[in-house]
Amino acid sequence: MKRYISILAILFLIISNSICLAQTEQAAVKEDFKPATTNQPGKEFPKVNSESRVRASVSAPEATKVQLDISAVKYDLVKDKDGVWTGDSNPQDEGFHYYQRWIDGAAVPDPNSLYFFGAMRWGSGIEIPANDQDFYALENVPHGQIRQVLFYSKSTDCSRRAFVYTPPDYEQNLTKRYPVLYLQHGWGEDENGWPNQGKANLIMDNLIAKGKARPFIIVMTYGMTNEVQIGGLRNFDIKPFQTVLIDELIPYIDANFRTLTDQTNRAMAGLSMGGFETRLITLKNLDVFSHIGLFSGGSISMDDVKNTPGFKEKVKLVFVSFGSRELEGRRGGWGGDPKENSNVLKEAGINSHFYVSPNTAHEWQSWRRSLHEFAPLLFSN
Amino acid sequence: MKRYISILAILFLIISNSICLAQTEQAAVKEDFKPATTNQPGKEFPKVNSESRVRASVSAPEATKVQLDISAVKYDLVKDKDGVWTGDSNPQDEGFHYYQRWIDGAAVPDPNSLYFFGAMRWGSGIEIPANDQDFYALENVPHGQIRQVLFYSKSTDCSRRAFVYTPPDYEQNLTKRYPVLYLQHGWGEDENGWPNQGKANLIMDNLIAKGKARPFIIVMTYGMTNEVQIGGLRNFDIKPFQTVLIDELIPYIDANFRTLTDQTNRAMAGLSMGGFETRLITLKNLDVFSHIGLFSGGSISMDDVKNTPGFKEKVKLVFVSFGSRELEGRRGGWGGDPKENSNVLKEAGINSHFYVSPNTAHEWQSWRRSLHEFAPLLFSN
Repeated sequence: MKRYISILAILFLIISNSICLAQTEQAAVKEDFKPATTNQPGKEFPKVNSESRVRASVSAPEATKVQLDISAVKYDLVKDKDGVWTGDSNPQDEGFHYYQRWIDGAAVPDPNSLYFFGAMRWGSGIEIPANDQDFYALENVPHGQIRQVLFYSKSTDCSRRAFVYTPPDYEQNLTKRYPVLYLQHGWGEDENGWPNQGKANLIMDNLIAKGKARPFIIVMTYGMTNEVQIGGLRNFDIKPFQTVLIDELIPYIDANFRTLTDQTNRAMAGLSMGGFETRLITLKNLDVFSHIGLFSGGSISMDDVKNTPGFKEKVKLVFVSFGSRELEGRRGGWGGDPKENSNVLKEAGINSHFYVSPNTAHEWQSWRRSLHEFAPLLFSN
Repeated sequence: MKRYISILAILFLIISNSICLAQTEQAAVKEDFKPATTNQPGKEFPKVNSESRVRASVSAPEATKVQLDISAVKYDLVKDKDGVWTGDSNPQDEGFHYYQRWIDGAAVPDPNSLYFFGAMRWGSGIEIPANDQDFYALENVPHGQIRQVLFYSKSTDCSRRAFVYTPPDYEQNLTKRYPVLYLQHGWGEDENGWPNQGKANLIMDNLIAKGKARPFIIVMTYGMTNEVQIGGLRNFDIKPFQTVLIDELIPYIDANFRTLTDQTNRAMAGLSMGGFETRLITLKNLDVFSHIGLFSGGSISMDDVKNTPGFKEKVKLVFVSFGSRELEGRRGGWGGDPKENSNVLKEAGINSHFYVSPNTAHEWQSWRRSLHEFAPLLFSN
């Protein structure tokens, strides 16, 4: 397991730093900038143009150096006579990115942006319009609810929070029961990730409105136990979270929501570290889960299948996905090529799916698309 | 109405600027600082001591001036040899305060704090421990849910958001129906105010656990229509919001939650501008609402009673409250002394209550306490 952890830890670090574009491009910048949809109400900056460049503007009359820091590249802004600093980034990938500002050596959030939890902090985020953005748009369709629940955890002796998505028809028929997906965030993130920047509720509302996914409940909770809250993966131990999930949260959800409680109607998936957790927990608990999803978080090999009694009978779906930029020049990592692993499982008669998000990295656009591909496959057999 | 608006607008401005303490106090600062409970996970600063002083610390090696800006006072921080700026505020009132930093002329949020929506933006907030903080503490009692719902509004042609508190026993008995309180935020705030810094769910969970309040549903939505979103009260028109509330949100809630839908089981309350809205809407819609709460948002006079047909028969409760610092030196504003107004109503046989929050201003501690006093009086007759 230690090898697996260190491979993933390196993956997290490298991917997040591997998209350093050169700052020396000469082409003229297209002047069709529009305010980012992730701006706070009424804020003009930051803006995004049709080339996916970000234009930042900061009023800091007394500062000597101001930078925009996005996708691991720092861009120097230029000061005008009024003390306003402005500058553009290179084109960004489609989708959501965390970013920050540097003002005279201080790393600070942008007061103009909405805030998102990632990299172990609430900080600025920006949405770059995507060609396929309709699948997570707020449409005039029936909407489910996102509910905050607080459940007491005996093992950690505190009240813990989960967000629960209930589908649009949940309140219409009070005798109907639903399957449940337990959906995990990545390292440095928390249970806010999927309902906020992940747009899990809108993805599901839109799929359900089109009849493309069966309505089910999604449960999202904090997947890092207190011991590693501010640590890293080095000291990662799955047991504390497994206890919270299996012994405390699932019974709470089954007692407080109209769930289908048998193994065939319970799934687990996660992104990055959440995929890593999903793999560890599901393989040890195939009496609890039947559907497995790993988004940018490793894969399942035939060795896993052989070492897990009952795998072929109990597992109804194995879904593995990555952003295309994660796979470039990297085949063979994570305990084997994940696509090859997926194919071998399929040939062995397992319901195995592999998906690659085009032109995205280890970021939320890969994971939004992964949920969009994964959800229609769930609880359909 | 115009006079009323301008009085309130002035009130909002003056109150928020009226607590400028002198920065020249000489007493030794008590060195018992602890990290604020509103800090992001693992962040040491800002800290608060037993005198309710705030100690800020900012790493900004290249900056020439760094300030802490809290309760409308700016405190200069002092730089050490490592480029870390530190300093203390004067003692603050108990409860929650918005604050920000200034770095070389740029106003920025504190990257160490959680963020709260107020003053028309997401920004930093800090919790000062209060003597009575147990009533809004996260206790090991049965917890209700906070649900995000999206409802289509024909009048504004968009999906709008509301947060809905359902009490702890809501999921236990699927035939039980509940009264509903529509609860509004203040100017420059939004529907996040009551569930976040307002702690409305914890206040209710604790009251219900002690048997001190009847379980009811609370609905919180955005009370500023698009036209005045970034404006002020000058152009305020109650009709657009009244249409959203009465014609769109209430029918949606009654269709999607197990509510008691008669007038005797529906209340409206709000803080500051939300109290102003509550007064305007309830007096025109006494067939819809029976219980009225104004928190730091004006009062109801005998003239109102006389000018509103059926008031005495239809209104089951009038609750008016203020922070004590709002009343100091200010008696006679808001269309008459609010305490005197309340007494006159009581003498006329109306169920009228007046509450003053000790040693607090036009801030959230006044409004948390107001909800805590108001809730036990609701739907009890």
